[in-house]
Amino acid sequence: MTKPSLMEQEARESADCVRRQIFQVERVVGEIADEIMAQDLDLIVTCARGSSDHAALFGKYLLEPLLGLPVTSASPSLVSVYDADQRLSRALTVSISQSGKSPDIVAYAEMARAAGSRTLAIVNTPGSPLTESADWTVPLGAGTEKSVAATKSYICTLAALVQLASALAPTRDLDVVLKELPEVLERATSLDADAMVRFLSEEKSCFIVGRGLGFAIAQEAALKLKETCGIHAEAISAAEVQHGPMALLAQGVPVLFLVHGDRTEEEQVALAHRFANEGAKVFLAAPDRFDPDLSIVEGQSHISSAIGMIQTFYLMAAQLAAVRGNNPDQPPLLKKVTETH
Amino acid sequence: MTKPSLMEQEARESADCVRRQIFQVERVVGEIADEIMAQDLDLIVTCARGSSDHAALFGKYLLEPLLGLPVTSASPSLVSVYDADQRLSRALTVSISQSGKSPDIVAYAEMARAAGSRTLAIVNTPGSPLTESADWTVPLGAGTEKSVAATKSYICTLAALVQLASALAPTRDLDVVLKELPEVLERATSLDADAMVRFLSEEKSCFIVGRGLGFAIAQEAALKLKETCGIHAEAISAAEVQHGPMALLAQGVPVLFLVHGDRTEEEQVALAHRFANEGAKVFLAAPDRFDPDLSIVEGQSHISSAIGMIQTFYLMAAQLAAVRGNNPDQPPLLKKVTETH
Repeated sequence: MTKPSLMEQEARESADCVRRQIFQVERVVGEIADEIMAQDLDLIVTCARGSSDHAALFGKYLLEPLLGLPVTSASPSLVSVYDADQRLSRALTVSISQSGKSPDIVAYAEMARAAGSRTLAIVNTPGSPLTESADWTVPLGAGTEKSVAATKSYICTLAALVQLASALAPTRDLDVVLKELPEVLERATSLDADAMVRFLSEEKSCFIVGRGLGFAIAQEAALKLKETCGIHAEAISAAEVQHGPMALLAQGVPVLFLVHGDRTEEEQVALAHRFANEGAKVFLAAPDRFDPDLSIVEGQSHISSAIGMIQTFYLMAAQLAAVRGNNPDQPPLLKKVTETH
Repeated sequence: MTKPSLMEQEARESADCVRRQIFQVERVVGEIADEIMAQDLDLIVTCARGSSDHAALFGKYLLEPLLGLPVTSASPSLVSVYDADQRLSRALTVSISQSGKSPDIVAYAEMARAAGSRTLAIVNTPGSPLTESADWTVPLGAGTEKSVAATKSYICTLAALVQLASALAPTRDLDVVLKELPEVLERATSLDADAMVRFLSEEKSCFIVGRGLGFAIAQEAALKLKETCGIHAEAISAAEVQHGPMALLAQGVPVLFLVHGDRTEEEQVALAHRFANEGAKVFLAAPDRFDPDLSIVEGQSHISSAIGMIQTFYLMAAQLAAVRGNNPDQPPLLKKVTETH
């Protein structure tokens, strides 16, 4: 038996990391939330790249309906390339970075703070440069992450965002998520995803469709297929796919639906069936009641289901990489910390 | 000789449409800008899908450094699916739609107006539902567009955004753009892009890289290759491509750089050379001074150059579709007006 990849080993730690993290940062997140709520906010700005930016998108879909505030993704280049400032005195800026050191992310946070924004850093590396430009830091309890492909740090970021959301606007649903998430992640870790491995084993490119939180998950899933399996996977929202990309389905580009059980589920399943009827190659990962190709692990909350889905996907991707002869720990050309300017 | 496709015919009208439009809406845009500037704005929210959303992204890169305000792209599903409201009393909401009738775009605009936001509609169809929920309308002078693949309406939207930007914050650079744009588009229409056609003639997928305004152009270019040529093209920013997608270049996925001559040009050209040295298939469309594979049509302003680049790309795509045996006017599965919910 070959030794599991770093990616697989680290992904398997997700449930424990999240359990530890929820416990460890509960108090600090509560304090931060009290201070944030005392502000007169118009806007939340997120700033991140790569997997961290996909976590930020998850945060957008989580926080917007909850807080009634627009959540916008900053273009770090605005500061690092174009030297521009923004009016941010009524904004909370949330910077997310595993390493906490990419120069463009740090530069944006420094501009935001100088412009009067309150600034929050979510980082996995204590004492990294990004924390110095932040009013508050939420540490990720992911521990050292050696794999180039982020897994447990991404999942811990989602958990941190759920915790922040719950502190800012407590709901019963978010309580449920914080309680059940480690156990949902454990079940998601051991789910048999062989059917998805087989579906993708020979493909060169694919679409991954989701909506709402599921679209953020699709973004992260697509990046993982690129990094570790050499598949040109692209995430597209269930709405946008009907605006043009659909034309490719007739050419045999397969489409993977990630349906995580929120109120978009029926519409997405109907779209998947429509595409299949039109001759497209379709794989449906969805709750059991839809008789899908892969029954996802469901929590009581659809938020937990969405997070469980990416956990299953990580382990699927590590397995798929092996089947395709790729080493997920050595993606061509890449290194762990990418510094962009 | 075969008759040119609708896509080609309509793309060839871009220069004339823009010339007419700049003249026709100058007064109304000026009046709107005066009213907008009298507001106390914290934020601009854009709401659009497909090509119109790519135009909105162009607007973000145009307006953010100019106005110092965050420009954020709304998720229409927030309203149409998740029934949520947003605090938008200090926001200007800009809705963009060729048809002016997609239900999700209309629903978001209605919510925004009810939430106290001022609302502006940019539409190509006078009297369409979207205009009814708007305080102001900027009509596009694109005329009827029959091709499924938007061309002249996209370019007119960019011109409208430049005009709006110029009315909100006049600069010499924007004056230059409004003056030179029709002529730049004419030159871009007749540029020989055979080299790009050859580069893409056999490919199944590719990346299109740009940065800043060029990244918005890359988004639109990628959609066109999907719609009309059956190529799975994905736009990636020159920064994000280094965060994971790069792994695919070693597998032979080609990468097209669209470098439009702003201050990112040297860095992007260096990245293109680095990728080529590492064995990737690279095509560089850039200003003449870089000895590129295709010299783009440059204006005096890099903004005009970016708009000229997509005009050249449209005609290239129509030609490429023919070479690959696709009919650009009949993309599989698609129709002109996509109504999403």
